[in-house]
Amino acid sequence: MPTEPAQDIGALDTAGARAVRAVLAGELGDAVGPRRFLHAGPTVEPSELVGPMRAAVTGALIFEGEAASVEEAERVIDEGEVELRPCHSAGGTGAMAGVISPSIPVVVMEGEGGVRSFAPLNEGLGEALRFGSVTSRVLERLGWMRDVLTPTLDRALRGVDGLDVVALQAEGLRRGDECHNRNVASTAALVSALAPSIIRSSSSGDAAAVIEFLSGNPHSFLSFSMAAGKAIADAAHAGADAGLVTAIAANGVRVGIRVTGTDREWFTAPAPLGKPKFFEGFGPADACPMMGDSFITETIGLGAFAASAAPAIAAFVGGTPNDAAQRVADMRRICRGQSTRFLIPQEEFRGTPLGIDVELVRQRCIAPVVNNGVAHRIGGRGQVGAGLTQLPIAPFIDAANALRGIGQRSAA
Amino acid sequence: MPTEPAQDIGALDTAGARAVRAVLAGELGDAVGPRRFLHAGPTVEPSELVGPMRAAVTGALIFEGEAASVEEAERVIDEGEVELRPCHSAGGTGAMAGVISPSIPVVVMEGEGGVRSFAPLNEGLGEALRFGSVTSRVLERLGWMRDVLTPTLDRALRGVDGLDVVALQAEGLRRGDECHNRNVASTAALVSALAPSIIRSSSSGDAAAVIEFLSGNPHSFLSFSMAAGKAIADAAHAGADAGLVTAIAANGVRVGIRVTGTDREWFTAPAPLGKPKFFEGFGPADACPMMGDSFITETIGLGAFAASAAPAIAAFVGGTPNDAAQRVADMRRICRGQSTRFLIPQEEFRGTPLGIDVELVRQRCIAPVVNNGVAHRIGGRGQVGAGLTQLPIAPFIDAANALRGIGQRSAA
Repeated sequence: MPTEPAQDIGALDTAGARAVRAVLAGELGDAVGPRRFLHAGPTVEPSELVGPMRAAVTGALIFEGEAASVEEAERVIDEGEVELRPCHSAGGTGAMAGVISPSIPVVVMEGEGGVRSFAPLNEGLGEALRFGSVTSRVLERLGWMRDVLTPTLDRALRGVDGLDVVALQAEGLRRGDECHNRNVASTAALVSALAPSIIRSSSSGDAAAVIEFLSGNPHSFLSFSMAAGKAIADAAHAGADAGLVTAIAANGVRVGIRVTGTDREWFTAPAPLGKPKFFEGFGPADACPMMGDSFITETIGLGAFAASAAPAIAAFVGGTPNDAAQRVADMRRICRGQSTRFLIPQEEFRGTPLGIDVELVRQRCIAPVVNNGVAHRIGGRGQVGAGLTQLPIAPFIDAANALRGIGQRSAA
Repeated sequence: MPTEPAQDIGALDTAGARAVRAVLAGELGDAVGPRRFLHAGPTVEPSELVGPMRAAVTGALIFEGEAASVEEAERVIDEGEVELRPCHSAGGTGAMAGVISPSIPVVVMEGEGGVRSFAPLNEGLGEALRFGSVTSRVLERLGWMRDVLTPTLDRALRGVDGLDVVALQAEGLRRGDECHNRNVASTAALVSALAPSIIRSSSSGDAAAVIEFLSGNPHSFLSFSMAAGKAIADAAHAGADAGLVTAIAANGVRVGIRVTGTDREWFTAPAPLGKPKFFEGFGPADACPMMGDSFITETIGLGAFAASAAPAIAAFVGGTPNDAAQRVADMRRICRGQSTRFLIPQEEFRGTPLGIDVELVRQRCIAPVVNNGVAHRIGGRGQVGAGLTQLPIAPFIDAANALRGIGQRSAA
């Protein structure tokens, strides 16, 4: 086993990702079923679910018509009648709780070498299923997304023969987005790019409503950015040398990483709370530990790894542009290379750090940092903060040791 | 007369600007007529016109049906039958040649205290009337802009009851635009904001074509930014203490400034070439001296005065983000204050320098710097470069001396 870190980052710097369809998750095959859902993060048992994720599962059961009330849905869960799998196991990613049932709308990405990935379309800020909200307003909006948004967006994407999401991400860095927690400029770019096709393929009423919905939510692009991240990371996973991190994901109980060259699906540690900047009126006692698949963006050189390109995010996640530059510099020390397409204007167009290497993390004792949205620990209360969170180092050391043939410190 | 610079920046930091209409210039009153046009920069005689501006006047004569050919149009000019006035004298601004005839589409801004301003809608990159192109393609596009773009955009603006352009400019700085030479993120924001209203008030075909046109041109927002700049500067001009610069404009022959508290319309100097970054294949011999009214953005704290917010522009105008930061720091030394609404994320949200003071320029011997697009000196050849250009200091010293009651170094 090598002790020198490998240099190869596989397809991380070359794989493309085109948004080609918007469909309901059930159309993607049998990854989901009426009581078979996907969720964010590594594997989790129904009995372990944290508040917002459990609430999101009840919401999905109601949305699918499998339960008439939250109480009935909770009985279905408690009786062990819901099967749960990580989104990542099915080629997808989900923000926050990331619960995907058959009627959840997703954007589908076409990657390299037959890779297909997906992510749920973003519902908007505030009350949302991904935070465990199950109000009638949330369910009604999901119904509209299923019935109007999805087919309208699908026609538009097919009308332009797919959209190059990597190009939008690269341009996003020039527009002050890091394409994880700040997506506002890229959302406007997405709307600008798709609007003519939306108009030409749908009624005026639907087109206006869909464009208003997409442009009214500064995170509309996040779904595209995550799904593209998954497509790129999966393409890299297939070919890269051992020790490359190709996913970071959490479920509120555990945070896990996926590493090339190992036979384990996840190396995990307890999910951290981090030190987020809390929104007015909230504090650490309100926070659900780390949750969501959106950290896939960090594995492809975006998010916290591109923080210095997005100085305006400081107002949201705390810190200053100088802190952000320091974080990026730290990340360069644990990455195998740098991107040739995600460039930071503020660093004279130097590429973002790319390709987290578990051996470099072990040797330098620097754990990756990610941009982290924090949910309230009680389902349905929404987001309570955001911040830069340093991951626990244990999973990286476990993976590095596994690759060096050394006994692991903790079990998955 | 005061020798201490005044501190008052009038309405520069408070005046609003809402885009309320899109109309043909002829609808704005009798500022323009069939052979009475507006142009960029200070006053200029028809016999003095530089290549691109003279060509733009011939194009306008043809577009208005006053001449059937360039040759005939040139005869009309040479016989003294075209009356020319600065856009600024009529409450407007025009990019590059800035020629405005009655059928030229303009966006209309509503400012403070009854101020109205306007700027021509941007035709796009490459061949365009503002560079003196008079091809059939240019005239056809102007016809489409007159017949389709203008009424469609007008209905959309009225449908949203006007659009807050100052808010878009402020957000633009967070999206890597400086709202003079880089407008790409703000253009997407503009399209996103107006698309639903465009769709709801026009046919699908027109809506799609208009959105495609606006989003396909990275400078669509420039017209809005310039017109807003004029509205703000005019509101400030009405009330501010003497010595404040409220316009910078050039016509390829002279560059001029407008200064509060003086009875002169313009203080001028020969238009400089500057030291632009030339596009591939062009050099100083191809360049037309400084031309256009777009430097109005610098007078309201944008453009070169916000250069550090737009690091990606370095690729276009040359230099590095560090150079840009130094320019902004220099500009702070000749400004009366800083903006409380145009904030630079890269400078920990410090406001841009605001309110150029002629006495500070005189005392510190630092002339303002502007972002400058450079036209080919031959009409119709288009843009040949762009860069940061330091203005000649003479007009500032002349104005400062005039305010101190000292004889002027040069005549207007």
